[in-house]
This record gives sequence, structure tokens and C-alpha cells, in this order.
Amino acid sequence: MSTKKYVIGLDYGSDSCRALIVDAVTGEEQASSVKYYPRWMKGLYCQPTANQYRQHPKDYTEVMEASIKEALSKCDASVAANVVGISFDTTGSTPVLTDANGTPLALLPEFEENPNAMFVLWKDHTALKEADEINALAAQWEIDYTAFEGGIYSSEWFWAKVLHVLRSDEKVRNAAYSVVEHCDWLPALITGETKPETMKRSRCAAGHKAMWSESWNGLPSEAFLTTLDPLLTGYRDRLFQETFASDTRVGYLTEEWAKRLGLTTNVAVGVGAFDCHMGAVGAEIVPNTWVRVIGTSTCDIMIASYEDMKDKLIPGICGQVDGSVVPGYIGLEAGQSAFGDIYAWFKRVLAWPLEALVETSTLLDDATKQKLMDEALDRLIPVLSEQAAAINPEESTVLATDWMNGRRTPDASQWVQGSITGLNLGTTAPMIFRALVEATAFGSRAIADRYKEQGVRMDSVIGIGGISLKSPFVMQTMANVLNKPIKVAKSDQACAFGASMFAAVVAGVYTRVEDAQKAMGQGFAMEYVPQPDQVAYYEGVYQRYLTLGKITEEAFYKGE
Amino acid sequence: MSTKKYVIGLDYGSDSCRALIVDAVTGEEQASSVKYYPRWMKGLYCQPTANQYRQHPKDYTEVMEASIKEALSKCDASVAANVVGISFDTTGSTPVLTDANGTPLALLPEFEENPNAMFVLWKDHTALKEADEINALAAQWEIDYTAFEGGIYSSEWFWAKVLHVLRSDEKVRNAAYSVVEHCDWLPALITGETKPETMKRSRCAAGHKAMWSESWNGLPSEAFLTTLDPLLTGYRDRLFQETFASDTRVGYLTEEWAKRLGLTTNVAVGVGAFDCHMGAVGAEIVPNTWVRVIGTSTCDIMIASYEDMKDKLIPGICGQVDGSVVPGYIGLEAGQSAFGDIYAWFKRVLAWPLEALVETSTLLDDATKQKLMDEALDRLIPVLSEQAAAINPEESTVLATDWMNGRRTPDASQWVQGSITGLNLGTTAPMIFRALVEATAFGSRAIADRYKEQGVRMDSVIGIGGISLKSPFVMQTMANVLNKPIKVAKSDQACAFGASMFAAVVAGVYTRVEDAQKAMGQGFAMEYVPQPDQVAYYEGVYQRYLTLGKITEEAFYKGE
Repeated sequence: MSTKKYVIGLDYGSDSCRALIVDAVTGEEQASSVKYYPRWMKGLYCQPTANQYRQHPKDYTEVMEASIKEALSKCDASVAANVVGISFDTTGSTPVLTDANGTPLALLPEFEENPNAMFVLWKDHTALKEADEINALAAQWEIDYTAFEGGIYSSEWFWAKVLHVLRSDEKVRNAAYSVVEHCDWLPALITGETKPETMKRSRCAAGHKAMWSESWNGLPSEAFLTTLDPLLTGYRDRLFQETFASDTRVGYLTEEWAKRLGLTTNVAVGVGAFDCHMGAVGAEIVPNTWVRVIGTSTCDIMIASYEDMKDKLIPGICGQVDGSVVPGYIGLEAGQSAFGDIYAWFKRVLAWPLEALVETSTLLDDATKQKLMDEALDRLIPVLSEQAAAINPEESTVLATDWMNGRRTPDASQWVQGSITGLNLGTTAPMIFRALVEATAFGSRAIADRYKEQGVRMDSVIGIGGISLKSPFVMQTMANVLNKPIKVAKSDQACAFGASMFAAVVAGVYTRVEDAQKAMGQGFAMEYVPQPDQVAYYEGVYQRYLTLGKITEEAFYKGE
Repeated sequence: MSTKKYVIGLDYGSDSCRALIVDAVTGEEQASSVKYYPRWMKGLYCQPTANQYRQHPKDYTEVMEASIKEALSKCDASVAANVVGISFDTTGSTPVLTDANGTPLALLPEFEENPNAMFVLWKDHTALKEADEINALAAQWEIDYTAFEGGIYSSEWFWAKVLHVLRSDEKVRNAAYSVVEHCDWLPALITGETKPETMKRSRCAAGHKAMWSESWNGLPSEAFLTTLDPLLTGYRDRLFQETFASDTRVGYLTEEWAKRLGLTTNVAVGVGAFDCHMGAVGAEIVPNTWVRVIGTSTCDIMIASYEDMKDKLIPGICGQVDGSVVPGYIGLEAGQSAFGDIYAWFKRVLAWPLEALVETSTLLDDATKQKLMDEALDRLIPVLSEQAAAINPEESTVLATDWMNGRRTPDASQWVQGSITGLNLGTTAPMIFRALVEATAFGSRAIADRYKEQGVRMDSVIGIGGISLKSPFVMQTMANVLNKPIKVAKSDQACAFGASMFAAVVAGVYTRVEDAQKAMGQGFAMEYVPQPDQVAYYEGVYQRYLTLGKITEEAFYKGE
């Protein structure tokens, strides 16, 4: 009787952690479990009006235990003993300051309620000023340390956040020794390899967000960092020089964690990476295919050969890093800072009369109102999509940009905002929604065009994430605007799937992650094919989108 | 026992006619009655998708009889015998083709159902092409016949509409002899003075909409008109050379009409004018005061002395005509093509979920749904205004233009459309509404600035019309943006009031309309005073409004 082998992919999103247990040979899903971060769900440590979003390290460890145990409880009893690998993907850049043991400061009693001692979530925008300073210094430095990160450093990234926290909080500053990314901390923790200087750091996180590159021997120089701010003195040496792709094993579960997770100490643990990077692997990325994780925002991943990328520096994307997705290829990251969030925003605008007028009406009792509201809110986007899809696009003059949450790619800007033009007295809510859907597709096209301009071939597109499976209208519009077929991954948990593929590699089931993809891949649910008449029509409208973006950006959004 | 004298002001709006009976000495209101146009209310003869809006002459005569009789029925029995004057104000330019007797063609049996034989309502936009042709020809002609009409001829005006109908309908063309404006036809009809060549024509209508000016001896030359289109051959001679201000008597009621209206043949009938021009008089306009009729759109009237206007040609307004408002002064007309209509548009957008989701729900019975919908729609704008007023304007980044129905003044354009920018994921429905209210105020400011640039003094502002009495938030915002106090006329029927003042003049109760104003004026209900901190704030935002308008117009709305 052959012993089966199982692996666990752990996918840490913005709100929750998903544990996925799969058969390491067939890729067959055994069980999964999603657990929400308990403190985060209470809104603790955040100030949305100031764009401050912090997460407590205990949120991460508690959901890890809970989700793995629950998933295991749904499996045959033999599974736990035969789990051979775990890999993590997380949001990022989501760094935290640590002590000399690599322990996040919020785990020390004196800092347990201090948001500055916690993980600074990817979407925290408190470090706008620091990002500007980094960009200004990089522009005049002999080496452009932002070169592999699209040429613009973001307030969402590692060094801006670290510097902002160091400046903001003297107590935290005095206690801080080093820094760790979310995707690095969890593998280090459960293998006991937490010492900051030797902790195995993710190539993906370091290369895309921390200005790490082999070409300048690692992180930016001590001179650069201390010129930026003397508060950074010594951090470079207490961080790392080497980084690792996710086919590298960090170690094995410690006895303590094996016990806590209900597993054995034979479980290999892989180097972590960011969610969409592993999602791209889970969605069976191959060279020159664009994998888009399409949810509230998009994270868009491509891989290209060294040959294809020779001497190419793609400006205005979120980075190009050797091995950040699949070892042996350059991983290219881009993304739209709002996608589904734009539809959700318009839903909130349209829900105003329900909340302000229906909910406050005395004509109905509370229970009926609640039912009516719930029903209306559930149906809002589906009915709106249906009516928007029925509009002949040439009959609506509405044109929008998709910058309601700034712009990530191409050419990151926190300053730009959304616009809608072509409004007349006949403009309806479905027409505006249609324009917003088109705007998100145009935003996608702008990224694709940047690759094209820079000579990076893009053969096809794969969609993963909520919207790709749920919104045929959005996906068909995108196929028409991009003029490329879009396949949609069958699995709705591609990130956790990708992590499980890497777990199978670090456990030695496969040599290369490409082999894991071939054996474990789940295939595609559907394909959207461009409609030629719509392709031609949207070509013209896209030019107007570019114009609207250009004129509003130049007039209003050039920075503070 | 002194005999009282009464006058009737008849105000023809887009949908209805109001008859107002007032004491000619005190101005005290005796009774009023509003009657809706019966065919128009059924939607007959119109094609909204083609912007074709036509009104049947019978609609006008039927409501005249009905409204006067109903108003009289509310008065003491002695009133009817003591009515000494009637004056009319109407929409315009609202012309109709007539036969040689001055009878609108739709009153002839063969044309009674033909929209081209009916009055072409002011907002009919079927003559876009003809307006373009008139502008093109005027630009190259030795005399600029558009000079006193702001330099841009509109598709809403006399010659464009006449030419469009002549071109569109051969039968109508063959039967047509002359043309008459709505405000000229009714006084002519009830006095029996309908012969086209001698009918007393309104200075207001002719000067503002038909390119009539004393400086070129009346209408544009035969050469100009036949170069525009040979179809216009002979019309100039069959129209008019002389025009009259509204203090001129057309004649007295014919026996037939005295009987039909329940009045005597002693009733003097005045030369008609457009509604806002008489409304300005009713609202006690004085030189250098700006009277704004603020409803779905605005019509803005100012009067200035000959001295003030010497050698001034104000570009981009809707005309400057000697005596078009108050005889002895230059009447200046301007306006915003959408004002309350923009709020109504946003209401329709926000009502979408009520109609698409609540109304289709199976959770409520039809009667309850209807009640709930009615209540929600009634409360929508008031609650939205309340929440919008509570927003600190500096906390919202939303900025809009007010061109959802094109732009009337300054610099008419049918091509421009509305825009909204500064949108982010935190933008709420009340923030957008606030921006729309600000945009309508900025549109007002743009007109005021045009007068200022041209050296026309504007001392104060008077508001009349629905919005001025009902929307303190809108009016206060406008006062802050204009940085001028705004008084609101007490009467909600200032146009009919103005007509009754002219009726008192043509009946000989007063020599000058200024005397009628002093004796009969109803005064003001309230005054909005600019708030200095808001004035300073809006000064900056207004510059951004100008920029948004400029960049969108240049990029998208320069014409077809």
C-alpha cells in the first residue's frame, strides 16, 4: 500500500487566512478552511480616515492554527501524519519591526497594543511623505535603486513604512532591531529560524518592495539609507544580503509547532512569497502569459525568460525580479489599485437612498426593512450589470477613469483620482456603471500597452480571483478592450493552490515548480474570446480614456 | 364709490398657463389659476429622443379660456367687468408657420395633426444643423447679425427653427406665408390684429432671437436670408420691420374674445414678451440688478442704461436688446441650460435602486411599494440636501461641471457635456450632490464674470422661481460663490406678476412700467448674504471648475 503525500498551502489575504490541503501528486483538494483575523475584524489598530491599517501578529498565528486544524478535521484521519510540506503566501509589502530574536514587537508585553509595533498592512498609506523622500533621493543617487521596481517607490512598500514607523514612535524605535515581512515571518516562526540576519528572506518580497537586487549586492547601500534618514543606521547589516525563491526550503516544523498544528516534524516549510505571485503559479502561469488576480484591486503577474528581458528595464510597473514567481524566470508585477472596489464604491453611492430613505421609513417594520434592504443590496450589482450589458455602448457617451484609489500601474501615483465625463440629462445609473466597467478594462489595457511598448510579449491572459469567476460582463468587456482571449482558472483559491505546489517542491515531491504545476494544475473553467466589432469600437474609446486621464492628471493630480 | 381696476397677467410656461388677476393699483392678488396644455401632457407631437418638442395652438387657446374663467370664478362677481388690461409672457423662441391671415398652420384642417405646422417649443433641438449654418454664414457676412445675440446663434432660436421646418416638410412649406412667435400670436389673436405684416411684434422676441436690430434696419437682409437658403425668399417682407416694447398696446379685446373670456371689450391688450423678461419686471428689477429665474434651467435678466452700454457688445450671452425688459434700458439676457434639471438628473440616477430593486421585490404588496416609493422619491432631494449641507466642503475633493444639458451662457455650446472629477473610494452620494450644487453655482459665477470682464456693473442679485424659494442650501452656496447678496422675490409667480404690471401700463393706469413696479411690487421673502470664509474658499474651487471645463471642452467637446 503506497503512502499518500499531502501538502498545505496557506494563503493570507487582507482579512483572512485560508488553509488548503491537497494531494501532492494529483493536486486533488482534500479540504480547506478560512479563518478571519479576530482583532482586525473588530477594526482594532486602524484609522481608515488616515489610511492607517495595522495587523496584530497574534491574528496571524491564531488563524494559522485554527484554519489548519479545521481543514485537517474535515479529512480522513490518516492525512495529518502524511502532510509533507507547507508554504505560505501573504499580502505585501506588510513589514513589522522586530527585536534581535526576530520577534515582532507587538508580541512583547509593553507593545502589545501599539499599532506601530504591528504589521503595516500593504494598503496602509501613512508613509506618503517617506515614499516621496525615497523617490527624490533615488533620483539623484549614483545608483537608481528603484530601477527594478518600476522607477517609482510607493508608500505601500517596505522602506517607506519602516522609516515612517521609526519616525513616528520613539519607544518602538528604541526597541527595534530589525524588520521582517509577513511572508518571511511565518515560515521562520514555525521552523524556529527567526534570527533576523539569517532568516531566509523571500526574493519576491525583497526584490519587488525593498529595492533588493543582486546587481547592487542586495539592499541599498548604508550610505543611501542613512542619507535618507540617520534613523536607518545599521538596519542594512541587521537585515539580509541573500534572498531565496519559493522552491527553497526554510526548514522543518519545530516540535512545538508540529504539536500546535497537529502535524509532524517531517513537514518541510518553504520560503514565502506574495499572494498573487503564488496565485500565478497556482493558475498555471507559463512564460509570456499574464495572470491577473482580479478582486477589489488587481495584482498582475507575468514571467519572461532572461533572454526576453535582457537589458530591459520596464518603467512604471511594480518590479521585475529574477525568480520572484517561478525560479529561472524574471517575474514581472503590475496591478490596478482599484478594480472591484470601484464597482463596490458605485454600489455604495447607489445604496444611499436605500439607507437614507428606505431604512428610515416608518412605513415598514424593522424586520421587513432588513429583508428588503438585504435583498436589494444582494441584487444591486447583478441587476446593474445585466442592464449595463444590455446598453449599446455607442449610445452612451459616458467615459470614466479608474483612479478612484490612485494608480498603481502604469506609473504609480497616489495623487490621481477618478473622473467621469460625457454626462447628460439622459445618463442613467447603468450607463455610469458600464463606463466604470470599461474604465477598469481600460486600466488593464494601459498596463498591457506598457509591456507592449517595452517589447515584452504577452500571448494570453489568465484571470483568477472573485470577479473572473462571477462577472461575465466584466470579463467579456476586458477581453474586448485587451483584444486578447482570457482564460479563467477553475480553482477559486489559486493562491493557496500555488502555495501548495511550492510546498510539494520543498517537500521533494517535485524538483521544479513547473513539474508541480503540470501534475497538480486544475485547468480552466472558461475562456472569453474578443468580439471583433467590439474590439474596433473600444480601440477608439480607449484613446479617449487616455486623453481624459492625461488632462485630469496634468490639471489636478501632479502631486501635492 | 370708486371703481376698482383689475389686470390679468398670463404666463405661458413649458407645460401650463397661469392666469393671475391683480388689483391694478395695489398689486394685491385676487385669484390665480393654472391649466396644463392638454395635448402636450399626453406627449403628443413630440419625440424626446430626437429632441423634437412641438405644441398645438389649440393647447394655448384652450388653457387661456380655462385659466381666465377659473380665476375669475374665484373672484367677486364685480371683478370681471373691471378688468382693464391683459398682458402675456410666454416661452421662446417658440415660433410657428402661419398662413397669410397669421393663422398657425395647425389650425387649418389639413395640418391639424402635423407637428411641423405647430409651435416649435424653445427646447426643441431639431435645428442643430441650421444653427451651425447660420453661424458659419454670419461669420463671413459683412454685417455680423449675431452681434446683439452674444455672437453665437442657437438651434433653439427663430431662424434656425423656421428654416428647419421649411426644409423638413414640403406641404407645410407650400402652405406657409409667414411666421409668428408664441408671445406675439396670442395678443394678436384676441385683438384681431393677426395680419403678419402689421401684427405688433415683440421687441424682446425679435431682438433676442430673430437677429432684429435697429442698427441694420430690422431683420437680416434678404440677401443674407436667401444665401442661407433660397427657401427663405420673401419671408423678410412678410414678417416685420418694426418691433415694440411691452408697454405698447396691441389693441382691445374683440367681441368674440371678450365673450369667450367672460370680459369686456374695454380690455387693453399689451405686446407680449418672454417669460423671464416679464418675470424680471415682476421681481422689481432695477438697473444693474441681476434677476435670475431659477428652475429646471435659469434665465437671467439684467437691465443697464444706454450710457453704461455705450459701444459695448457682450460676447457669449443670449442678447442685448433696447427695451426688451424695461423700455428705456438695454435688456441683457443670459442663462444656464440646466440648473434644477441637474439635481433632478442625479435624483433619477439615485432612484435607480428604488425602481430596479425595491419596485420589483416580491417582499411587499403593490400598494405598500407604491407608498414606500412615493415617500422615498419625495424625500430624496430634501434629505440629500441636508446631508450635503452638513459636509465640510474642504473634506470633499469632488468637482463637477454643470454642462449636462450643454451650455447656454457664457458662450453657447450644444456639444459640451457634464464632468465629475476628484472621485475616490470614500466619495458619497451627498458629496456628489454637493459638487453638483457647487457646479450650478459656478456656472452662475461664469456668467457674472463675463459681465464683469465686459465692464457691466452688477450690484445685486434677485432670485425667482421654484428653487429660490425651496432650496436654502443651493441659494446660500450661490451667494457664497457669487460673493453677492441674493434677495428672493416673495411672489412665486413673478412672471405673471410682471405681465400684470405691463397690463396696467397698456390700460393706462401707469405711464411707465417702473411706476407699476413701485405701486404693485410684492417685495422680498428673504436675503442670502455671502459668508466670508466660504467666499474665500470657493474662489479657489471656482478656478478649478474653470480648468475642468476648459480641459474637457478642448479635449472632447469642440463640436461634432
